[in-house]
This record gives sequence, C-alpha cells and structure tokens, in this order.
Amino acid sequence: MIGYAFMGAAHSMAWRNVHRAFELPVAPEMSLLVGRDAEKVAAAARRLGWAQTSTSWRDAVERPDVDVVDICTPGDSHAEIALAALAAGKHVLCEKPLANSLAEAEQMAAAAAEARGAAMVGFTYRRVPALSLARRMIADGELGTIRHVRAAYLQDWIVDPEFPLVWRLQAEHAGSGALGDIGAHIADLAQFLTGQRISAVSALTRTFVPERPLPDDAAGLGATPGSGRGPVTVDDAALFLARFDGGAVGTFEATRFATGRKNALRIEVNGSDGSLAFDLEALNELWYYDGRRPAAGEGFRRLLVTEPEHPYLEGWWPPGHSLGYDHAFTHQMRDFLLAVAGAGRAEPDFAAGLQVQRVLDAVQRSATDGTWRAVPTSDRVAATAG
Amino acid sequence: MIGYAFMGAAHSMAWRNVHRAFELPVAPEMSLLVGRDAEKVAAAARRLGWAQTSTSWRDAVERPDVDVVDICTPGDSHAEIALAALAAGKHVLCEKPLANSLAEAEQMAAAAAEARGAAMVGFTYRRVPALSLARRMIADGELGTIRHVRAAYLQDWIVDPEFPLVWRLQAEHAGSGALGDIGAHIADLAQFLTGQRISAVSALTRTFVPERPLPDDAAGLGATPGSGRGPVTVDDAALFLARFDGGAVGTFEATRFATGRKNALRIEVNGSDGSLAFDLEALNELWYYDGRRPAAGEGFRRLLVTEPEHPYLEGWWPPGHSLGYDHAFTHQMRDFLLAVAGAGRAEPDFAAGLQVQRVLDAVQRSATDGTWRAVPTSDRVAATAG
Amino acid sequence: MIGYAFMGAAHSMAWRNVHRAFELPVAPEMSLLVGRDAEKVAAAARRLGWAQTSTSWRDAVERPDVDVVDICTPGDSHAEIALAALAAGKHVLCEKPLANSLAEAEQMAAAAAEARGAAMVGFTYRRVPALSLARRMIADGELGTIRHVRAAYLQDWIVDPEFPLVWRLQAEHAGSGALGDIGAHIADLAQFLTGQRISAVSALTRTFVPERPLPDDAAGLGATPGSGRGPVTVDDAALFLARFDGGAVGTFEATRFATGRKNALRIEVNGSDGSLAFDLEALNELWYYDGRRPAAGEGFRRLLVTEPEHPYLEGWWPPGHSLGYDHAFTHQMRDFLLAVAGAGRAEPDFAAGLQVQRVLDAVQRSATDGTWRAVPTSDRVAATAG
Amino acid sequence: MIGYAFMGAAHSMAWRNVHRAFELPVAPEMSLLVGRDAEKVAAAARRLGWAQTSTSWRDAVERPDVDVVDICTPGDSHAEIALAALAAGKHVLCEKPLANSLAEAEQMAAAAAEARGAAMVGFTYRRVPALSLARRMIADGELGTIRHVRAAYLQDWIVDPEFPLVWRLQAEHAGSGALGDIGAHIADLAQFLTGQRISAVSALTRTFVPERPLPDDAAGLGATPGSGRGPVTVDDAALFLARFDGGAVGTFEATRFATGRKNALRIEVNGSDGSLAFDLEALNELWYYDGRRPAAGEGFRRLLVTEPEHPYLEGWWPPGHSLGYDHAFTHQMRDFLLAVAGAGRAEPDFAAGLQVQRVLDAVQRSATDGTWRAVPTSDRVAATAG
Repeated sequence: MIGYAFMGAAHSMAWRNVHRAFELPVAPEMSLLVGRDAEKVAAAARRLGWAQTSTSWRDAVERPDVDVVDICTPGDSHAEIALAALAAGKHVLCEKPLANSLAEAEQMAAAAAEARGAAMVGFTYRRVPALSLARRMIADGELGTIRHVRAAYLQDWIVDPEFPLVWRLQAEHAGSGALGDIGAHIADLAQFLTGQRISAVSALTRTFVPERPLPDDAAGLGATPGSGRGPVTVDDAALFLARFDGGAVGTFEATRFATGRKNALRIEVNGSDGSLAFDLEALNELWYYDGRRPAAGEGFRRLLVTEPEHPYLEGWWPPGHSLGYDHAFTHQMRDFLLAVAGAGRAEPDFAAGLQVQRVLDAVQRSATDGTWRAVPTSDRVAATAG
Repeated sequence: MIGYAFMGAAHSMAWRNVHRAFELPVAPEMSLLVGRDAEKVAAAARRLGWAQTSTSWRDAVERPDVDVVDICTPGDSHAEIALAALAAGKHVLCEKPLANSLAEAEQMAAAAAEARGAAMVGFTYRRVPALSLARRMIADGELGTIRHVRAAYLQDWIVDPEFPLVWRLQAEHAGSGALGDIGAHIADLAQFLTGQRISAVSALTRTFVPERPLPDDAAGLGATPGSGRGPVTVDDAALFLARFDGGAVGTFEATRFATGRKNALRIEVNGSDGSLAFDLEALNELWYYDGRRPAAGEGFRRLLVTEPEHPYLEGWWPPGHSLGYDHAFTHQMRDFLLAVAGAGRAEPDFAAGLQVQRVLDAVQRSATDGTWRAVPTSDRVAATAG
Repeated sequence: MIGYAFMGAAHSMAWRNVHRAFELPVAPEMSLLVGRDAEKVAAAARRLGWAQTSTSWRDAVERPDVDVVDICTPGDSHAEIALAALAAGKHVLCEKPLANSLAEAEQMAAAAAEARGAAMVGFTYRRVPALSLARRMIADGELGTIRHVRAAYLQDWIVDPEFPLVWRLQAEHAGSGALGDIGAHIADLAQFLTGQRISAVSALTRTFVPERPLPDDAAGLGATPGSGRGPVTVDDAALFLARFDGGAVGTFEATRFATGRKNALRIEVNGSDGSLAFDLEALNELWYYDGRRPAAGEGFRRLLVTEPEHPYLEGWWPPGHSLGYDHAFTHQMRDFLLAVAGAGRAEPDFAAGLQVQRVLDAVQRSATDGTWRAVPTSDRVAATAG
Repeated sequence: MIGYAFMGAAHSMAWRNVHRAFELPVAPEMSLLVGRDAEKVAAAARRLGWAQTSTSWRDAVERPDVDVVDICTPGDSHAEIALAALAAGKHVLCEKPLANSLAEAEQMAAAAAEARGAAMVGFTYRRVPALSLARRMIADGELGTIRHVRAAYLQDWIVDPEFPLVWRLQAEHAGSGALGDIGAHIADLAQFLTGQRISAVSALTRTFVPERPLPDDAAGLGATPGSGRGPVTVDDAALFLARFDGGAVGTFEATRFATGRKNALRIEVNGSDGSLAFDLEALNELWYYDGRRPAAGEGFRRLLVTEPEHPYLEGWWPPGHSLGYDHAFTHQMRDFLLAVAGAGRAEPDFAAGLQVQRVLDAVQRSATDGTWRAVPTSDRVAATAG
C-alpha cells in the first residue's frame, strides 16, 4: 500500500478485516507500506499493522513478493504508480479520481485493458449496502424507466476563510476541488445506479474564497512557509445539469460550502414505476417508493439495509445492527480479492474510472466557456486509446 | 357555543367552514355565543362571527331557536351544562374530558343514553385523517392481532417554575393535570385505534413544581391577586402501564415537562402482521410497516395522508397539500352534523367519554395507592347507571 | 373572485376566515363570484359562500360595489382581467404565474405601477410561516453571505401516461408546464429568501410523455371529445442552474415526474454563517444550522414554526399545533387587506411577478438553444415598460 | 475468549482493531479461543483470527500465558467462568447480563471487589459515541434536573409463531427473555445517562406465543430433536414504570414483538434545561434541545456525533463519516485495555452489572405479583455481599 493518510487508514482496516468477515479463496497479507518519509511510514506501519516499509514506490511495485498494489496517494501520482504496477504484472487498486487529467486516465485505462492483473478504481460508495441494493433494484426493473437523478455531495469543511491552503485546494496536486474529490462520486454513482451514461453537461464552478493562509507544512505544497496566503486554484463548488444516454436528466452539485452538511452525499432516482433516495449521513437507510401500488397505501419506505438478504450483509450482524463508513471499504476489498482470485470481475474498472474522468473534464470545459459539452462515449475513447 | 377561549376559537373556525368543505344535509348557523363577561363575550362574538351573545348558559340551552349546544368551557362546568342541554332536547357537543369526576361522567352518559339529541364528546384527534386511517387499517385487520401500544403525549409549557398557576393547574377547575388534559387523548386513541378496552392500569403521577406564582387574574382562580404563590393541585405528569381486554399491553405517558416537545402526541401500535406509528407534530404522516411482506423489501412507510381516498380528504386539497390542527375540528363538526341530521352516529358518544373517564379514575387511584386497578367495563357501568 | 376551481376554493376559505383569525382594519365581504357557466358558478357560490354570481368578468370588474378583484383563472386570462380591473381602479390579487408571456407580464407590471389600487401576485408560499421566518432570519444576517440555493419542486401526478391532457398540459392555456406552475414558486422563493436576483440561467426542459388521452370535457381544450389523443405542448420537467446577482449559485428543478413526491417543494440555503432547509410536505418545520457555534454541539435544528413569536402565528393555536396548506392563503389575504387599507405594502407586487416571469422566460430560451441566458434586471425592464 | 457466536465475532473484530484505531499502552494478542466442540472452535479461530483453541474453559482461565478472559457465552455460564477467572487473577470482560440470577450476580460482584484483575461487564452501548456524549452532557449539567426517561428496546425477530425455540427463549439458559437480553441495556443506559438509580418498579411481562417448534439442534436445548414443540419459558415483552432515586420517573419497554422495529433502542431524557433523544437504528445521531434558549429559535438538533471532539472519534474518520454497531465494541476494548494497563477504571464494573440485575429481578417480582418493588441500593447489597 502506498500512502497512509485518511485513505490509507481506511484501506488498512479493510485489509485487516476482510477475510474475517467474508469467506474468501485468498487472504491478504499486509506486507509493505510505502511513504516518502522513512520515520513517518515506519510509525504508520506499526500503528496500521503493516509488516515492512519502504520509501520507494518504484521498488515496491516491482518486488516479486508483492501481488497487489493499493494506491492511496493524492491524484497527481496515480497514473505514474498505476502504470508501473500494471506493467509489473501486479493487481492494482487505485483511489479515485483515477487521475488528475483526462490524458492520464486514458493511458491508465488503456494499460489496464492490456494488463494481466486486475485493476479497480476506488469508488467505494458503490459498496455501501444501501447503494448496492439500489443498483440491484434498478437493474431488476423495479423503478421502470429512469427519468430523474438528483445528486448532491455536500460538505462544509472549508467554509471558514481561515482554513489553510491544504493540498486538496491546489490544482497541481488535486486536479480539481469539490468536483474531483466528491463530485466524482456522484457522477460515478448516478451512472452506476441508473445504468445510463451521462452524455452531456452544462456546468458552473465557483471559488468563493480565492485566497487562504498557507499551512504550516506548506513546503510540501511548493510554497514558502510563513509567507502568508496563497491562491486557491480549484473549485469550491461545482454544479451541473446532465443528460443521460438513456433519456434521464439530472442535477448535480458538489460543494464544500454547504454549512452544516458534513458528508451529505444525497442521491434520488425517480423512475416511471418507483423512486429511491439515499443520504450518506444515514447510510444504513434506503428510501423506496413503489409507484405500482395504489398511492393511498404507499409512501417512501425506510428500508433498513441490514437484513441478511441485503448485499454484503452475510458478513456482519443481525438485522438492525448498523454498519459504518469503513465497512464499504471492506466490501470493496472483498470484491477486489475475488477478482484477484479469478472469482469475479474488478468493478469499477479503469474504463469506468475514465468514463467519470470524462464527465469531470466536460464539466470543467462547460464551466469555462458556458456551453453544453458532450461526454464522449467509452467506445470512441476505447478506439482512441487503441 | 359556550366558552370562547382556545377551544372556542377552534370550534368557531370549524363551524364557519364545515359546510363549505363538505356536502352536508344541514348547515350550521352561528347564532349565539355565551360567556360570563358581557363585554368580553361581545368582542369574541364579533371576532369569531357569532350573531348574538348571552351571559347565561342556562337561558341559552333552553332557547327554542337553539338546536345545538357546543360546550367549550373548563371541565368543572361540563356536567351541569350538558345535563341541562340534553334535558332541553338539544344536540350536545362537549369538549373533553367529559367531566372532572367519574360520578358526573356517569350521570352524563346515562342522560345521553336517554336523550333525544345527539351527544358527542370532543376527542377531536380521532378525526385527524392519519388517525382515522389508522383506525380503518386496524379494523380491516391489516395489523393482525394487536400486541403493543406505546403512547405518549408530551408538552413542555410549564417547565419554567415561574409559569403561573393558571386554572389548568388547579384541581377544582381542571380535575387533573396532564392526565385529564392530554392523557385523556391517548387513553381514548389507544382504545379507538385498537378496538380493545383498557382493562387494568398501574400508574404513577408526579408534580415536579409544587408551588407557582398566582396569575394576575387570580380572582377567577379563587385566590387573592398579588398574594404570591399557590399550590399546584394537579399532576404535572402521569405514567401508566395498561392491559387491554383483547390481550395487548401498553405504556402511556402524559407530561407537561418534556422540554422541547411542544405537542408531541405519539402513538405506535404493533400487531402480529404490521405496525403503525404517528406523531401529532407531523400530523399529515402515518408510518406503516407491513409485516406480511419479506423484511428485505419492507420498511416503515411514510404515508402522506392527503390522498383523495383518505378519510375526510374529499373536502380538501390535492395530494401532498397538508392539513393542520384545526381541520380535525372541521371533520368533527361534519360528523356531528351528520349525526344531528340523522345520517350518522355521534361518536365518540358520552359512553365512550365515560369509558375514558374510568381509565383516568383508575390511573389516579393506582397512582395513589400503588396497586394495579381494574377499569370497569361499560356494561357494568351501564347497569349501574341504569 | 373570478374562477372557482382549486385556487378559488382555497381563496374562498381564506376570505372567509382572515378577519376571524387576525385583527384587521377592514373586513372582506364575499360579494360576487364569476364564472363562465351560470349554473356551475351558482352552485360554487352556494358551496363556497359568495352572495352573488355573474358570468361576465368584464361587468364584475367595473361594478362600483366591488373594491377587490381576486383572479383565480388559468394564466391565459390573467393579463386581460387584471388590466381591466386596475384600469377600473380596483385592488387586484392575481394568481401566479402573473401571465403566460413576458409581454403580458410587462404590461401588467407597468399598469400596476400607475394604478391607484394595490396589486399583488399570489406567490402564497412566501406566507407559509416557516418560509416567512426563513426570510426574516436571512434578512437579519443570521446566515451571513449566501452561497448556495438548492431548490426543487417535485410532484408526480402525471407519471401515468394515461393521465389525460388537461388544460395544465396545453401551452395555449398554461403557458408552460411544470416550469410555470411550480417552477415559478421556487424561482420566486429563492429570490425572496436570499434577497438576491437570479441573473443568469442554463436550463433544460423535458416532455417525457409527448401524447396523452384527451379528457372527457376536451371541448374546453379546443379538441374534439373522444378523438383519442393529443400532444402535450408543455414541459413535464424543467431543470436549471442559476447565478444570482449577489454571488450565490443555485440548482433548480421543477417536475411532475418525481414518483412518490406529492408536493415536495424543497429549498435549502447555505450561507457563510448558517443554513436553512425546508420541505413543503412538512410545512411547519424549518431546519436551521448555526455555523457560528462549535460544530461539536451543533446540528440542524427542527424549528417547529408554531411559536407565538413566529410570523402569522398570533392568529392561531398554541405551540406545536400545526398549520396546513390553506393557512398560507389566509396570511396572504391578511397582508393584502392591510395593503388595501393602506396599512402595508402589497408584496409580492406585479414587478416581482414580472421578475419571476423573466426568469421563466430565460429558462425557456436557454432550454431551447442550450446557452446561458441573462435575466434582465427590473430596472431595465421598468425603463422599457415606461 | 470463550464463545464464538454473534458476540464472539463482534468481540474478535474489536480485539483485532482496537490498537490500530487508538494509541494504547498495551496491545492485545488474540491467543486462545475456547468452545465446546473442537472442530467448530478450530474453524471459528481460523475465521476470526485466534492463534490457538481449547475445549476447556477451566484450563484456559488458568493458563499463565492468558492475561485477559473475555466471556461471550450465554448467561447461564457467566458466573462459573468469571469466578474462576477472577480467582486465577485474570482480567475479566463479561458479556451482559452479568448473570442469570441475582444470587450469582452478587457472588460475582463480591469476587470482583476483592480481585486483582479488572472486571468489566459488557454494556457496550455506553460506548456508542452518541450515548457517551449524552452522558457527558448530562453530567455537565446541560439538561438541568432530570425529570423523565422514556426508554424502549424494540425488536421483532420472533413475531412469527413458527420461529423456533432457540436457547434465548429458554429460561434455564437465558434467565429471562426480552427483559434480560435487551431490557438490561435500557435499564443500564437509563442509570448511566442520568446518574440516577432506579429505586422502584412496577412491571408486567407477557409471553405472546407460549409454544414454539423445537429447533433442529434441540439437543443442546435439552429436548429431543423432532419432537415437535416446546414451551417458551421466558418473557416476549417486559414493560415497567420506574422511580429514580434522584426524582426522575420513567417508562421502560423491552419487546421482541414490535413488528418492523429491528433494533430500535430508543431513549429520551427530559431535564429542566434540555432534552436528549437517541435511537440505535440511527446511532450516529443524538438529538438535543436546549431549553435555556428562546423557544422561537430552538428545536431538536440532530447532532451528527462524528466530530473530532466527540467521544472516541479521535480514532476514526472525518466529520460526517458514520460509525457502525461494531465500533462500540472497539471502544469498549479500548477502555478495558486502559483499565488492564492501570490507566483507567473498568466501567461498568461488576457492581454496576449487579445493580442492573437487581432492577431486572425487581421487574420480574413485580410482574409476578403486581406490586411495586423497591430496588435495593448497592450499599445494602455490598453489605450483604461482604
């Protein structure tokens, strides 16, 4: 595993527990943790339970005793590491967004298509049981023809203008702001859930606070510590309308300025036969309306997604006993290990990651010039990539 | 109509609108408002839309041009007025609780049983559409055998120990405190919804603030103005367990000390085949769980009780357009007028009011001596009363 | 009052009750109801409580014994009637949207600016107490600088493709579909609440079901009864992004295809210091987050907008006793009557109605050609109109 | 660890992760798993990650390489194992309820008081962060004087009369039914949160389904497989009223017959200055009402208990990222290990477990004879035990 911050901790917990919760043909060994600073990576390995450490990701991805490379670094290093790991024949799990640019993402998807190893991108929320169930219900036709998606990912951690200019607010490291960090999730989920592709977007982005104090460790950000303030070079919020190739339409919003909303990924889907609604702040619940029943006896039902028949619940507790944010990572590792063992497909694959990247790219272009932008289909892209 | 405070205003609104919202064989005429103070009653009549006024309820209930007597006074005068009105052959609508004592209530029920006119007690909440619908669903067997009732009526308007000693806090006027004022509602609703009678109770009552400042107009309360404080002679809270004659069990709580709960009448009923839950603070909603369906696809549904098929909704707005507290009074007047016109039964009748009174009486006795108390059945009472 | 369908019934209830709930310098007299069909209007007048009837709105608006003209007809007749009534010196209350075209709306606003009488447009939801309170809080600065608006008005009454082609689905009568009927409300509320104007929009509209069965009384729709199906000539759904002149951004969605959402007007506003959220399906609640408090002790609070200090609550019931949809109409009549009596301003006035019309017009143009459209400011328009 | 069913799996996960999430002076080693069946315990150890296995708990608790004994067996073996382990000088964590009888619990508490090792009883829910926060707020006086507790623990897993007669439905193994299994939790929490002891109770219990099919492995239940049905010898539901020694009053209900409620542990506390409400089905939320603020600006706030300042959150994710049921076990292990290391107290200790046992005992006695039952104070018991 490369990187050991927030994502690294979440992934470690998943690696630690996945084969305890689920029956698997293979069991992971937490062998090697990689980071730039030898001391820090050693401390992290002790805490998170990794056997060895390294400061060279290049060495790491080529070691013969490494089968799986788990990339938990910021987006600006995803492409380089993933390409090297795939070239070395490793199985690769890469955090989202797949890359910081469309060009990189295309290269990665092309490489993955040729690679021996499994390649998966970390759109973890697909494995929140309520969202997996939502996908299953829509795929089974329970919502009929899908007409509407309304998706928002709302956070508020930078409303304070004195919040410092961390790497997530710098374009060279993060690629984009709310758009790539959290907008990527709703773009992915909307397509995953509906089974439709976003085909065109009209967007606007906004940076409400254009300058922020430099953080104490600003060296890592390419700025002199103590020099005061620096420019925010990413969006604080991104909003877009979308057309889907299956006829649905949608509104999307990703923002870090929704005061009071801590991690509110909300998505509602309306079809001709029913509707589903979800909020990540209450992630064990899926709200379902069955439009085929008489309205007088029907209302949105709060499905508590903790029944044994629900996705991934066979690994956990009795009905009504909640899961949390980190369980979705364990589910992701389960499915990734099944793919590694040849017992399943790695999904979302890098092509799916690329497709989201194209949506983000179209959003940025649309926000720049104010026009609707088509999102190229995967087929055209695959052709290009080939 | 006798009395013109809170209840008088709510009833006036209902009398004003009932025949505009519903098709009725008779239309009410708001002819005469009665109160003790000539000036105040005149002002109230102008505001609420009553044609004439009187300061004598005795004259009023005997006037030949009066067909219906609507009693909105405190509980200590219900019996006297209702008995006179029934004796004069009038139709009587009496606010709840039916009376301040069991003896009075028995007399009233006996008189009503013999009377020519219709007699109804104002347990208005039965006509909140969500609760009428709940009754219909349970009566139709959709919940199977009823096992549990959990009912609470929570308010907080006297948490402040400096809140004055108004008539509702004095036993001689109000009979009891939270118990008779709001506990009466949940006792009635629990029996109405389940179709089972409360057969025995174990109770405790509590007066958290035993003394309060006398109000400015304390003369009306039998105390000298400005004399400082007086004793609270009613319960602030009443809690009881109940056994029902149909095998269900229940918890009940009525309190004016639930800080932050403004008017939270909550009732949940669990049966072998399903459950219903309701909260008066969100009165357009009824939550329903269908236990006959597979658990993986079921959850509590929020029925928005605003569909045309729902009780009383034929008089109002399109789906999703909410009703409020006062609409239930209009529904009550609709059904009362239908009974007056011979096109329906006056329910809840005085016998039902008496049955609730018996529950309240058993609660008070149980709270006093700490024993379980049986609630006499109506049949025995009817025999006694006869 | 002209027209007596859904809006006519709601307005009648408000006229009937307004001076009973509120102290007013003037009291309304429900003198004359106008409709095209003599028999039907007579029946409606009996039911709704109007003293006389007429089949000529032209006569009606010129009668010397008429002071106030209340226009409850479909949008295609608003301009003609309102202009005549204003010319006759009457006070005019006109249902929304102000008109079916921008040209008409401009004419109406110009006429109102010159008229003696008060002129108000019926954006009733401004007077839902929770929304009036929201406006007050934002105007008082409690939310700081407003950054985000997310507004949706979701209904589902035409999801069924066999629902007939009623007048609301025909452009010549309704002007537009979801956009003008319910989108107008959220456009108005977003501006009312934030105090900012929508300055530019990017939109898409969609008609999911292009053809529908003709209704039985299709004569009134300009089609031969029984001839089968006709084209839906309005939008089923309208989505737009908006920039506000004060720096906020917003997503808007109006649809009649949100299966299970009956009347879900939802609006959330995020500011630098706090947030507010509202849903018309639970209209007594306003959710408030105070961003100035430490996050560990703060969360969205469910304000139950039934306290005596809340807007319009002085006319109603004790805390926790809910109001419904129709109470907002009574509040509207209260304020309109105060304006008529010279004791207040008629708001929203026709200029505000025109401003919303300009937003709707920009939305339609943007949806047609896929470009961002600026919304002209009132000043330019006023200049034009002058 | 002894036992490896539901509780064993939850404890194993906690032992596996506790030192990864939290900085601790000691790290657990998962050395020995004990069960009756050699094959099954070996499979469980492989699955859950225990190094060795044993079929003799007696050997296990005396092994010198064992420091901590974690008892996850049914209640009928708690006393014997815990007494042996304490006698052997081990630290003991014992699942709740402490024992199946009051006599056993008294013995255990007395032994623990004399023991060298730490002794803790597994009332895990105290460590759900929202409930830990609730305790902190009440202890800090934010609710003022506590007046009301209303607690219910609602499940529905045996509503079906064909659900088999598992050990939890047999008195000789489980001691009691809903009462000891889930009622114990609310009895503990009510006292933990308020800091007041339950001093007297009036109760009723009910067994709705008196006979059930024997399970396939009924041998373990002391019945012949295939013999058909056997008697349910525990309560399906237990309801009680309680008086607290600090002046509060409460309603309590534990049931397995609340159709649709999967794991709804609900507790609300009302004080003179504020209120708190919690539901385990939404365990990241704590609802708080501050009664010291003006009512017009206050409502129940949904505290999302995921901020870094909240209890135990320093070990987990950023704000808004939910925790689940199992995280509370990890928190319990954290605090138990701190106690083991001498860096904290083992709470709830066996005396606290005994106190809950006394409440349960009083409930059963009250339910049997219908009288109010006093709950002896710990002091009297300690005297007895001494």
